[in-house]
Amino acid sequence: MTDRPRLTALAERLPATVPFVGPEAQERARGQPFRARIGANESGFGPSPRVVQAMAAAAPEMWKYCDPENHDLRVAVARHLGVKAENVVVGEGIDGLLSLTVRLHVSEGTPVVTSLGAYPTFNFHVVGFGGRIVAVPYANDREDLDALLEAVKAEGAPLVYLSNPDNPMGTWWEADEVEAFAAALPASTLLVLDEAYGETAPEGTLPPIDVSRPNVLRLRTFSKAYGLAGLRCGYAVGDAALISSFEKIRSHYGVNRMAQAAGLAALADQGYLATAVGRIAAARARIADIAHANGLAPLPSATNFVAIDCGGDGAFALKVMQALLAHDVFVRKPMAPGLDRCIRISCGPDADLDIFEEELPGALAEARGN
Amino acid sequence: MTDRPRLTALAERLPATVPFVGPEAQERARGQPFRARIGANESGFGPSPRVVQAMAAAAPEMWKYCDPENHDLRVAVARHLGVKAENVVVGEGIDGLLSLTVRLHVSEGTPVVTSLGAYPTFNFHVVGFGGRIVAVPYANDREDLDALLEAVKAEGAPLVYLSNPDNPMGTWWEADEVEAFAAALPASTLLVLDEAYGETAPEGTLPPIDVSRPNVLRLRTFSKAYGLAGLRCGYAVGDAALISSFEKIRSHYGVNRMAQAAGLAALADQGYLATAVGRIAAARARIADIAHANGLAPLPSATNFVAIDCGGDGAFALKVMQALLAHDVFVRKPMAPGLDRCIRISCGPDADLDIFEEELPGALAEARGN
Repeated sequence: MTDRPRLTALAERLPATVPFVGPEAQERARGQPFRARIGANESGFGPSPRVVQAMAAAAPEMWKYCDPENHDLRVAVARHLGVKAENVVVGEGIDGLLSLTVRLHVSEGTPVVTSLGAYPTFNFHVVGFGGRIVAVPYANDREDLDALLEAVKAEGAPLVYLSNPDNPMGTWWEADEVEAFAAALPASTLLVLDEAYGETAPEGTLPPIDVSRPNVLRLRTFSKAYGLAGLRCGYAVGDAALISSFEKIRSHYGVNRMAQAAGLAALADQGYLATAVGRIAAARARIADIAHANGLAPLPSATNFVAIDCGGDGAFALKVMQALLAHDVFVRKPMAPGLDRCIRISCGPDADLDIFEEELPGALAEARGN
Repeated sequence: MTDRPRLTALAERLPATVPFVGPEAQERARGQPFRARIGANESGFGPSPRVVQAMAAAAPEMWKYCDPENHDLRVAVARHLGVKAENVVVGEGIDGLLSLTVRLHVSEGTPVVTSLGAYPTFNFHVVGFGGRIVAVPYANDREDLDALLEAVKAEGAPLVYLSNPDNPMGTWWEADEVEAFAAALPASTLLVLDEAYGETAPEGTLPPIDVSRPNVLRLRTFSKAYGLAGLRCGYAVGDAALISSFEKIRSHYGVNRMAQAAGLAALADQGYLATAVGRIAAARARIADIAHANGLAPLPSATNFVAIDCGGDGAFALKVMQALLAHDVFVRKPMAPGLDRCIRISCGPDADLDIFEEELPGALAEARGN
């Protein structure tokens, strides 16, 4: 008998943690808002006006519970991708779907392979369910497919995480390379293929959807190119048996009613998506230009952000980031060894990039101690 | 090595399940919409017009991630209740918070005490994390506090669930009875006190908030009296150490941006809440009148619904419900032995109750085989 309710042994040893500190928390700490919000890989171009209308129209209907089957959105996603509804599960963003995927496959001590410096929220879920992270370093700023494969085999890992295009570096593999990686995996290893940035990638980056392969799960979201990060709505696509296993544990009312309505409207407005993707590409080019103009090396990017090599070590890039923050420009940076020489700038409207352009020279000078 | 990725032993044995079939799914199966939606304990009176405005205003901002700390809403809830922010965790509805609470305390084989016929989603989470449900029958249509306490002690259960007011019967215990129950629990047992219907209960039903007690967690929601079931936003209140343990596992971006904005606006409009509570009380009285007029016995209710004793067994009440559904009136019913003699009617505007009033006599006649 203890003097208070006891947590599970696993919960007891988990740290209380926040994978990211939000810009709002930073603004509260600073006592001052940022002038440019280009740090969280959001799309400052926002959602389609039709989606905004759909959300406003859904507002008075919010007294109703959401459809626990997410039926209309699930069917629309399936149609969009040319698969059956049984191959799609809609969830609370990729974060929510990653949590469920991990929970289905990971128990105490299960090895899970990912890249050192890749998406921290995935790691949060793995650790949260008692798994053991096996982290493979990036090679040439890309997730290292050969080394990931080797680690999977050495560990007998049931899960391997790959983001393509990659966050936080913005790099990518061609579709055939990803397919070769998937084909080389043991049948007992599930490839968790995070394609959050799929819509902004060059043609030929996303392998064709093939739901006949039971060990590949594709994850996509309305958070990035669709401009709806605050919505918490994404979907996973895969083999029907795998997808049906989510029914065992998912929070059936988890995707809120407006998220379903907005997701449906977003998917229906592919014209806006194309426009947004064009704006994001233009912003990427401008961020690269700004970097070059300051003597820095932008990395090629297939995402809605650009990692900029600041030309020094991690400590230097950290100083650059901190100087930008102090100048009211919200940006972030990779933290893993080797990747940490970069800062990471999200695409956004010209007004935001104007501020970045204006503040970067000063931030660099401060970081250099001039 | 298997020919496909293997689920955990626990996930493998879980059934694929849906705790509730939504009215939308029923409408799809019927090929026809319901004329009255009074089955899911939603509030047909809807949210405050100010909340609807706040949602529409938030729509264009949905490109931003939500504040992962839910800071503004958390602080507002704390202020509303007269506690500190550290005593409040905001989550994806009570469902989401129940899942986290269970995950923190339940592992394979952990006994968990609840009432037979109480909230199925709680059981879904308990089973989903490997727990073992110990279900205590209701007594006189109320959750049986003495028997719950006895079961907790006999099983050494770390969790006991109590909803007050109760769903699905609408009954309630007075605050001092709940307090006596809490005080009698072992210190190592957490009382998960679901107060989803707290706002519609008579004064004296909710014990004063006392966050000094480490083994009581209070759960509340914007789904019911606030008229925002589709929002997925609720909160838990308790001892700071217990509340901080949610940081170990919660989905930090889980509460979507609009839900935070809407929750804040809802909390700020207590005038509307009072109006809604008045309308709900009037609807309760009208549902009771309709029941009486048809020779049925409505149960006293502290919630936004009324359980009606149909005067027969479970099979008869099931027929009444099915006849109502066939007449386009969406209602539900309790399923546990003893409780199953009732149907359950949610409060709603007069237009909905008019339809119920119109259709009930025919439904009863059909159920009686007349």
